[in-house]
Amino acid sequence: MTDSRSGPARKRSKLGLLPTIDTPADLKKLSVEQLPALAQDIRDAICDQVSKTGGHLAPNLGTVELTIALHYVFDFGQDRLLFDVGHQCYPHKLLTGRFKLLSKLRQRDGMAGFPEPRESPYDLFSVGHAGTSISTAVGMARGDQINGEAHRKTVALIGDASIVNGVAMEGLNNAGTLKRQFLVVLNDNGMSIAKPQGALAGYFDKIRVNPHYDDLKRRALDVIKRLPGGSTLEEAYHRLGEVTKAALAHDHLYEHFGLMCIGPIDGHDLPGLVSMLKEVRDIDHPVLLHCKTVKGKGFDFTAGDPTKFHSPKPFVVEGCRVELKQSGRSFTSAFADALIDVMQRDEKAFAVTAAMPDGTGIDKVMGRFPTRTLDTGICESHAMDMCAGMAKTGLRPFFAVYSTFVQRALDQVFQEVALQGLPVRLCLDRAGYVGGDGAVHHGFMDIALFTALPGVVMLAASDEPNLRAGLEFMRTYDAGCSVIRYPRDNVAKKPLQSSPPAFVLGKANLVKPAKKSLGGDLAILAYGAMVYPATEAAKELEQQGYDIALYDARFAKPVDIELIEQLAKAGTPVLTIEDHSLAGGLGSQVLEACNDRRISTDLIYRLGMPAKWVYQDTRDNQLAEVGLDAPSISRRVRDILDRHAKGPLKIHVDVSQATAAREKTVTH
Amino acid sequence: MTDSRSGPARKRSKLGLLPTIDTPADLKKLSVEQLPALAQDIRDAICDQVSKTGGHLAPNLGTVELTIALHYVFDFGQDRLLFDVGHQCYPHKLLTGRFKLLSKLRQRDGMAGFPEPRESPYDLFSVGHAGTSISTAVGMARGDQINGEAHRKTVALIGDASIVNGVAMEGLNNAGTLKRQFLVVLNDNGMSIAKPQGALAGYFDKIRVNPHYDDLKRRALDVIKRLPGGSTLEEAYHRLGEVTKAALAHDHLYEHFGLMCIGPIDGHDLPGLVSMLKEVRDIDHPVLLHCKTVKGKGFDFTAGDPTKFHSPKPFVVEGCRVELKQSGRSFTSAFADALIDVMQRDEKAFAVTAAMPDGTGIDKVMGRFPTRTLDTGICESHAMDMCAGMAKTGLRPFFAVYSTFVQRALDQVFQEVALQGLPVRLCLDRAGYVGGDGAVHHGFMDIALFTALPGVVMLAASDEPNLRAGLEFMRTYDAGCSVIRYPRDNVAKKPLQSSPPAFVLGKANLVKPAKKSLGGDLAILAYGAMVYPATEAAKELEQQGYDIALYDARFAKPVDIELIEQLAKAGTPVLTIEDHSLAGGLGSQVLEACNDRRISTDLIYRLGMPAKWVYQDTRDNQLAEVGLDAPSISRRVRDILDRHAKGPLKIHVDVSQATAAREKTVTH
Repeated sequence: MTDSRSGPARKRSKLGLLPTIDTPADLKKLSVEQLPALAQDIRDAICDQVSKTGGHLAPNLGTVELTIALHYVFDFGQDRLLFDVGHQCYPHKLLTGRFKLLSKLRQRDGMAGFPEPRESPYDLFSVGHAGTSISTAVGMARGDQINGEAHRKTVALIGDASIVNGVAMEGLNNAGTLKRQFLVVLNDNGMSIAKPQGALAGYFDKIRVNPHYDDLKRRALDVIKRLPGGSTLEEAYHRLGEVTKAALAHDHLYEHFGLMCIGPIDGHDLPGLVSMLKEVRDIDHPVLLHCKTVKGKGFDFTAGDPTKFHSPKPFVVEGCRVELKQSGRSFTSAFADALIDVMQRDEKAFAVTAAMPDGTGIDKVMGRFPTRTLDTGICESHAMDMCAGMAKTGLRPFFAVYSTFVQRALDQVFQEVALQGLPVRLCLDRAGYVGGDGAVHHGFMDIALFTALPGVVMLAASDEPNLRAGLEFMRTYDAGCSVIRYPRDNVAKKPLQSSPPAFVLGKANLVKPAKKSLGGDLAILAYGAMVYPATEAAKELEQQGYDIALYDARFAKPVDIELIEQLAKAGTPVLTIEDHSLAGGLGSQVLEACNDRRISTDLIYRLGMPAKWVYQDTRDNQLAEVGLDAPSISRRVRDILDRHAKGPLKIHVDVSQATAAREKTVTH
Repeated sequence: MTDSRSGPARKRSKLGLLPTIDTPADLKKLSVEQLPALAQDIRDAICDQVSKTGGHLAPNLGTVELTIALHYVFDFGQDRLLFDVGHQCYPHKLLTGRFKLLSKLRQRDGMAGFPEPRESPYDLFSVGHAGTSISTAVGMARGDQINGEAHRKTVALIGDASIVNGVAMEGLNNAGTLKRQFLVVLNDNGMSIAKPQGALAGYFDKIRVNPHYDDLKRRALDVIKRLPGGSTLEEAYHRLGEVTKAALAHDHLYEHFGLMCIGPIDGHDLPGLVSMLKEVRDIDHPVLLHCKTVKGKGFDFTAGDPTKFHSPKPFVVEGCRVELKQSGRSFTSAFADALIDVMQRDEKAFAVTAAMPDGTGIDKVMGRFPTRTLDTGICESHAMDMCAGMAKTGLRPFFAVYSTFVQRALDQVFQEVALQGLPVRLCLDRAGYVGGDGAVHHGFMDIALFTALPGVVMLAASDEPNLRAGLEFMRTYDAGCSVIRYPRDNVAKKPLQSSPPAFVLGKANLVKPAKKSLGGDLAILAYGAMVYPATEAAKELEQQGYDIALYDARFAKPVDIELIEQLAKAGTPVLTIEDHSLAGGLGSQVLEACNDRRISTDLIYRLGMPAKWVYQDTRDNQLAEVGLDAPSISRRVRDILDRHAKGPLKIHVDVSQATAAREKTVTH
């Protein structure tokens, strides 16, 4: 522990206080006057580390003081602290014994980039999706109350971009009915992940610290009277401290939700925050404390500081997060250019994102077609229904969304899109393992979700030319909803086919024929990004004397059942490969289609993501961990062929015997 | 057409105006003074019909005047009318040429109980899930604008229970950014589906028609100045009519969302509504018109009127809907009693519903355990996360929710429940076909959704004793999320086993052994409700001389693979039967599990819901339509056995040949 801790400490000798904090109890030993210096330590440690490994920078820099103040005032060994999205949890982790893990930020066995209960009991939920903290906090508050542990305070920390997400608003509405302490800290930096969207963003902007009226207390009492709860609250008012009374918000949106609203106050003023939280902590009614913060506080995004942030791997600032500079061309970039081309050819085509213009490449599209690109904010459900409405008027919306976030709009894909047969186009970035973001962000179940919906077709792109061909297929596919998936990875520098054939519904694409027969010794049906490691494996196998056919499956729904049938008839083993859960994935679609047509699946083998959670690491390591890298694929193919060489593997089924037995019993 | 129309007309001779309305153009020929009489006609027609066939009564009676006024003022041949939930669409259907379909309400080829584009171009989206109308309306408004058809007005009609759903709030926030006409009509009856939940419900109650101040216009202008949009809106204000100015709401919640808020006004005052809508129609800015209505207006729920509503099949009022009196005991009732027993035995057990206390049986639980039962309102996402929070504190929440509505919380099941390994219990009512509610409400994809999530187990209940046994299993299953599904149907009067064995994880239950061997001629693995038609089929088959084993599968995840393996070894064909989509259902789980263990699936057959939308009808008819009734099952079994009698069905795979071919090419 001392070793890894001394690492950053050596480099940053001025980290005087931070290394002395092992637990929040250590923090509480500091005086309020010492806290700003600790804040600077935390800021320096985070900047230093993120410059090396990448990670979320701005959200964490914006919440340093808030986090210190919360841990200073509350006791989260007992009390409950729920993070929303969670990309702002680094300061919290540094204050709860994880300084030593920081040097391996977002790496295997290092510090996860999001709250992670496996790391510490101070992390209650592993999160990464927005808007959930208030609802889980409501559940824990109710649970503690029920369990006779009402002394445990509950705090949800949520940003202004997340709080307008539907789940968060549902949570607030329910929180307003609680009859106990409950604190929502609104971290309002006015930035959202990209820039704020929706009318409420303008609303937040308008709210400023209230002028101090002469009749402040009378007005504050008026506020209290307007809230549901009436006289009890009036009594509570008289117990409020002066700081709170002075900051009671008048006419705040969330007052309507039944919360006592306080602020906005300065989210970087540590003494002020501590005083306020000490008073607010004891209010036995739901409270929203509105804090204005500066995203990336203390770090100049535009100029940077080359000496301070020098690092062999330079980092780049992408929106609110700092990413390691990519050396290659990402699928995201390729998608942006491909969609721009589609939109140039087709004036009915529109681009939609839900607060992820950077992450999905839609920012570039927006630059090119500002009036044909829409950003809804973190509202995937709304975005999906808006796309349905647009499609209903004859437009061709392309909704670019992470695979993991489209889960939030599953019901909308069902009702407003698939059931209506509307041609909404879903472009799923981050399909498969996502690397450092870990289990909260893997795109592991999109095929399973969409293949159960009648009429939805499901594509995957293996490289840039296929991404372009896939999007072109989707552009003209007006028969219903179409979905394409592609990974958080780089496209191949040298594509297998620079001009692949056009996508044909339900048809795979042969990218490497076998030598001797249709499928050779074994045919690989690889989906999306898996085509490339499969190609590598096939090359190695050929060098070892195996004859391998390699198909880019292209479609998981419908699968190319004619091809599978031909291969089955020829007695060729088939291995499906996908960076999707084995449950409900491409392989499962093949099994279903074969079963429907009474094609034997004795020679079908499936490789995919196993039913386990895979934590932060590089995407390559994650793929290798589950056997989806080229060497594992080769090994798997050899295993299959070796076992076949020893004879049929399936359990012997003596149909004639079973039939004979039945014939004896049939009496009609 | 005249025949079916004259039916109700004969009985209710006073239906003077309604039969003259074929299209909204006919409506516009009436004077405003005639409209109340038409409203009475519509009310009578609906009451009369619903008393015979069941259906949604109160929501429709509450919106008669609103609907007439909307069609009177707007031209929905061009303009866009989006219904939220849609159970209030009967008046709309009667005004758009579907009076003749009313006599077959919610029946095959009759009038669907929800908006249905297949019936009429006046129905834009088939809906049934709450909160979506504003978002689809935003999409259509944007689309019309883009297509140069800005003259088409957009109206979303939404109730006070739906508007607090997360999707609706996301939609409102986005609607506030529109720079064009956009009207949200808030139908505020203060009732929700059961009773209103959440703090906002209290808020709506407090809003009353504003007193008319002397300085009304100045204050109205102040309101406009507070909205985003500033000076443009000020100009708009001067163009507002006097009626609108007088009704501009001060300090309305949705003002914060960027909407000009008007009202509340009386939603049953036809002349008033018409005047208001005529003025509001031309405001080129998003507007929310808040209308107070009385749910079930014109119908006394408590007393009824025996002469007026006499019918051979008496109806019962269940919350806001009128249901045909059930002759048997429903799974819902059985569930309520079983959960009460669980909660009696286990003080950690809690019941949760999202605005469906009647539909899920939770109302009875609430009567028994008022402090251990929670209703979140129509907020499935929030409810799921709240359950996660409760489970995190050691409680055992049982969330009773329709299968179709749990789709709205899929992402929460992923992140807050499954990823955390939290033992939230999901009790899915209305799994399978739901009858009259049709395609918007079938529970067809729950298995597909949950089996892709690591650690989630998936049960089904075939009858009341098994529902009890299943819930008892779930009560003590603290290892992770467990899900049980059961249909909108009656439980068997005489269960196959009055005391079935306890549920054991991943184990099927033999309910009818074969005579000669483990699986006999064929083993049926039936899931949930399908056990009973399968039993009937098995009886018929035995009479015909076949030897059939029948298993209650009990678990779709994990499936009883040891049993399947034994059957495969014995050469016994297996037929899986489920009222779930074939895609991703129990049968698919069996195929996957077999493939993982290299068990041949040549003798596995699957029966389930096909990949098509099935529309309103009785549940029995729907099951029969897709081959899931007893006669179809018998037929399917005979087909399988007949074909087996003719020899193996699978495509012959000559593994030795393939292996030999490979051996020649292998060089190492």
